[in-house]
Amino acid sequence: MKLNTIGEFGFIERLAKGIRPKRSVVKGIGDDAAVLPWMRDKHLLATSDMLIEGAHFKKTQPPEKIGWKAVCCGVSDIAAMGGLPKWALVSCGLPKDLPVKYADGIYRGIKKAAKCFSIDLVGGDTNRSKKIILEVVLLGEVKKKNLVLRSGAEVGDFIFVTGSLGGSIYGRHLNFVPRLKEAQTLVSNFKVNSMIDLSDGLSSDLNHIVKQSKVGAAIYKELIPKSKKARGVEGAISDGEDFELLFTMPKSDAFRLLDLKHKLFGIPITRIGTVTDKEFGTRIIDIFGGMQAVRPKGFRHF
Amino acid sequence: MKLNTIGEFGFIERLAKGIRPKRSVVKGIGDDAAVLPWMRDKHLLATSDMLIEGAHFKKTQPPEKIGWKAVCCGVSDIAAMGGLPKWALVSCGLPKDLPVKYADGIYRGIKKAAKCFSIDLVGGDTNRSKKIILEVVLLGEVKKKNLVLRSGAEVGDFIFVTGSLGGSIYGRHLNFVPRLKEAQTLVSNFKVNSMIDLSDGLSSDLNHIVKQSKVGAAIYKELIPKSKKARGVEGAISDGEDFELLFTMPKSDAFRLLDLKHKLFGIPITRIGTVTDKEFGTRIIDIFGGMQAVRPKGFRHF
Repeated sequence: MKLNTIGEFGFIERLAKGIRPKRSVVKGIGDDAAVLPWMRDKHLLATSDMLIEGAHFKKTQPPEKIGWKAVCCGVSDIAAMGGLPKWALVSCGLPKDLPVKYADGIYRGIKKAAKCFSIDLVGGDTNRSKKIILEVVLLGEVKKKNLVLRSGAEVGDFIFVTGSLGGSIYGRHLNFVPRLKEAQTLVSNFKVNSMIDLSDGLSSDLNHIVKQSKVGAAIYKELIPKSKKARGVEGAISDGEDFELLFTMPKSDAFRLLDLKHKLFGIPITRIGTVTDKEFGTRIIDIFGGMQAVRPKGFRHF
Repeated sequence: MKLNTIGEFGFIERLAKGIRPKRSVVKGIGDDAAVLPWMRDKHLLATSDMLIEGAHFKKTQPPEKIGWKAVCCGVSDIAAMGGLPKWALVSCGLPKDLPVKYADGIYRGIKKAAKCFSIDLVGGDTNRSKKIILEVVLLGEVKKKNLVLRSGAEVGDFIFVTGSLGGSIYGRHLNFVPRLKEAQTLVSNFKVNSMIDLSDGLSSDLNHIVKQSKVGAAIYKELIPKSKKARGVEGAISDGEDFELLFTMPKSDAFRLLDLKHKLFGIPITRIGTVTDKEFGTRIIDIFGGMQAVRPKGFRHF
C-alpha cells in the first residue's frame, strides 16, 4: 500500500492515532497551530510550514516572493487562531551550486515579511539538498479570551469568508498578505466561534471546521465571492492557497459585523452560509433550490 | 558566485547580518537553540532540525531509526542548553508512492523517541516531495539558573567531552541516545560555563565556543577519547554527528567533576583541554610538545 492510496488526510489521521498529549497542552494536532500553556492571560502558539520546490513554488519564480510566502503561510495560521506572531525559526535545504544571489533573494523575502509582521528571526538550520526546501516555524501569542479553534462552530452560526476565492495559482499565492490585521479586528470586536485559514481550498477547509465542530453547513452558491482569476464557482470552492479566513459567528454578532464591516475592514467580508446540524451534512444550495453535497476537493499532497 | 564558494557558515553569517532581535529575546541565532522569555524562573527553548534523504540518511536504512534520529538531534540541542524538551512539531515531505509501511516506520521511531524523552507531539505539516524530508521542531524549557550558552567559556576553564568521538557514520548517528540526562546532572551540580552538542565535529563545534566566547583553546591530543570506529585521532576531531556534549567549567568545579564522575555518570566524561586567551588560538598539543593549529574541519553542507 502506497501513501497515495490512503491520501494525505488518511495518513495524518493514521499518525495522529495513539497520540494523547498531556493535559498541559491546550490544543495539539489538528488546528492551524498548536496551543501551549504560557502566561497567565496568554497562550503560546506554534506552527510549522514546509515549502518544497516543485510542490509549492518553482525555481523560476522570484526568490524574494518564495521567502515572503514561506513566512506568510505561518502568519496566516497564527492569524486564524486569533493570535499574533512573535518569533520565527527558518530552516532550509539548498543546492550547493545555487547562486548566492538567489539564496540572498529568498532571505530578503523572509526578512521583509518578518519586518512587516513584527517577527524576530531567532534561529534555524541550514542543509544541502537537491531541491530548495524552506521550513518556517512561527511562535506566537494569543490572549486566552481571543483564542479561536476549528472546533467551536455552533448550529445557527453565520459562515463568512474574507476577500475572494480561487485562482490563487496565477500569482496571488506568492504575494498574498495574510489576514492578520483583519483576524485581530474580528476577535477583538466579535464573538468568533470557529476560524481556519483557507490553505487547502474552501471545500477542504470547511470540512475541517464541520468535522471538528460536529456540525453541518449550508453554503449559498451565489454568495461565494469568486476572484477574477477563478475558474467559476468550482474553482472558488476547490482551489488551494487562497490564505483568506473562513469563520463562523453567532447570528447577533454576525448582524453587527454585516453592519460594521465597511467601517472596520478594507477588504470584502462575505457571508456565504449557515452552520447546520450534523445530519444536514455539508451542502451547496443555489437560488433555484438545487442542493449538492460538498466533497472536500482541495489540494492533496498525496 | 555559488553557495559552495562562501560555504555553509559563510552563508549563515551573511543571512544573520542585519538581524537584531528585540530585547525580549534572550538569545537568538547562533546557539543550539533560541532562548525566549517564558515564566518567572524559566526560559522557553526552540530548535529546529531538518533531515534530508541523501544528506542525513539513506532510504535503505531502517525507517524507525530515521524517525528516532530526527527527534534526537533536537533533544541533543535542548540538552546542550541545559534544558528539557517538552513539545514537538514534526513536518515531513514524502514521496507519494512511498509504502505506507515505511512512513509508519518513520513515525514509530518518532513516537518512540518522544515517549523516551517525555515529549508531546503537538503539530506539524505533511507534504509531497521526491526525497524524504523530516523536520522536527522542539520546544523546551530551561531553568534560568541552568541556562548554558556557547558564549560563556572563560580563560582557565577545563574542557570536557562526554562519550567517545568519531566514526558515528558507521551506525551510531542513527541510534545515538542524546545526552539529556547527563546534561541535566551537569547543570544541576556544577557551574558549566559553556556547552554545545557535537553535531558538526569536535573541531567545528569547539570553534563555535571559542569564537563566541572570544577565547582560545589548548586541546591535548592524547586525551581525546576516540571511539573504536574512528579513523584515529583525525577522525575523532573531524567526524560529524557524535551528538556528545562539549563543555567547559571553572577549575574548581572541574576537579569536583573529575572526583565524582564515576559516581554520577554511566558514561565516560573526559577532560581534553583548557580554555586559553584568544591570542593563543585553538591548538592541539601532543605529548612530544608538538603544537598544531586546529581548523574547523567537520561536516559542511556546502
